[in-house]
Amino acid sequence: MLSTIKIVLVETTHPGNIGAVARAMKNMKMHNLWLVAPKTFPSADATSRASGADDVLAGATVCATLQEAVADCQLVIGTSARGRTISWPEITPRECAEKVLINEPGNTVAIVFGRESSGLKNHELDLCHFLLRIPCNSEYSSLNIAAAVQVVCYELFVASGLAPQEEILVGDKGEEPLATAAQMESFYIHMAEALTDIGFMHPAKSKSIMRRLRRIYNRVQLDTKELDILRGILRMSQGHKRNNDD
Amino acid sequence: MLSTIKIVLVETTHPGNIGAVARAMKNMKMHNLWLVAPKTFPSADATSRASGADDVLAGATVCATLQEAVADCQLVIGTSARGRTISWPEITPRECAEKVLINEPGNTVAIVFGRESSGLKNHELDLCHFLLRIPCNSEYSSLNIAAAVQVVCYELFVASGLAPQEEILVGDKGEEPLATAAQMESFYIHMAEALTDIGFMHPAKSKSIMRRLRRIYNRVQLDTKELDILRGILRMSQGHKRNNDD
Repeated sequence: MLSTIKIVLVETTHPGNIGAVARAMKNMKMHNLWLVAPKTFPSADATSRASGADDVLAGATVCATLQEAVADCQLVIGTSARGRTISWPEITPRECAEKVLINEPGNTVAIVFGRESSGLKNHELDLCHFLLRIPCNSEYSSLNIAAAVQVVCYELFVASGLAPQEEILVGDKGEEPLATAAQMESFYIHMAEALTDIGFMHPAKSKSIMRRLRRIYNRVQLDTKELDILRGILRMSQGHKRNNDD
Repeated sequence: MLSTIKIVLVETTHPGNIGAVARAMKNMKMHNLWLVAPKTFPSADATSRASGADDVLAGATVCATLQEAVADCQLVIGTSARGRTISWPEITPRECAEKVLINEPGNTVAIVFGRESSGLKNHELDLCHFLLRIPCNSEYSSLNIAAAVQVVCYELFVASGLAPQEEILVGDKGEEPLATAAQMESFYIHMAEALTDIGFMHPAKSKSIMRRLRRIYNRVQLDTKELDILRGILRMSQGHKRNNDD
């Protein structure tokens, strides 16, 4: 189960950090590394700091945007050192591990780490269901990225020993699978369209409204059946408005 | 309490690691760093990797032997990646944190990290009361020394109960209150109306659809501001555009 969890690094600047992340992952039996637009990769610095985890580096997937990296994921967890104005639902590394491995197993999961200097941008946080915050010194809260990955993967590894066996999991999951990030994206595009059609949204205000709506629907973690229902409602609301206008 | 715990590094080879350890410690509110016969210290590499934790480096005590470093300690915990022939009593980082801060507080404590390549020697282990082992991949078990310090200090910080939950809570408390059950009921009534108006819902099927929708919106725990937005959308979809000038 651990090996399927994606660790996603967004625009990492120092290749040494990428290597140190690979090592931290492999120490905790994790292998699924994604790099979004890394500044330098591959690199001798990365390989040297990986120190025997070069298989993780070699198997890393490089892509251009976070959206690509999380397209097939049902649970996307962003990491952040600082508080945000629109507060996301926040979890600790331990809660994250329990959620991913014990309480809601079976999802395709990405845990996303931002730039060394500036973390994740708002449009990247929009893709996340939860914000993971590592408990730390409030006066000196910026962990090195590999140190942060180490703590998160360590908690996952510890929790994996407590995770129920697979047979139990299969039994639990009689329900619909959760929607993937890509399915949620087309839902949001459809929603923006529909809200414009019914005259709810002024283009000028759409950004902050859409961010609030994303916050609601990311938080609720829709399954595919529920998503179908909501899209059906969007379609009908568009048709209704058109008919009224005609 | 955290600030009195000594982190002791024995014969560290790479000064960059010393800097990274200082950063990992300060992130977790720890400051008491001891260096036993470091190969190179002070060093520009250490300062650069410390990244703002130079106060921890500046305050570090350098000494010649582990014996000196732990002379005043009542509880000495060595760290090790591999099993030993003469087995020491072993503890995990979490057990270590509980022992040090909760079960047996008030001791002068040292946690000792060995050489990058070869760990602690037997005569150094002789000075330790417990051996701390970080749970990890048995096939790739050697953590970077700063990563190991990060995990151990993180567990200490969590156990210390100093985790700055306050800030997060204050942030959350500043927000809108959650919607009451009564507010949610009138939302569902409004929703049923709107879904009928736009032709989405056949009265015969409304019960099961509304049950599914309730399941979604109850799960998400809307706050009152979010509820306002969703009700605004319902109103607009009905085509009952309200005008303040009316």
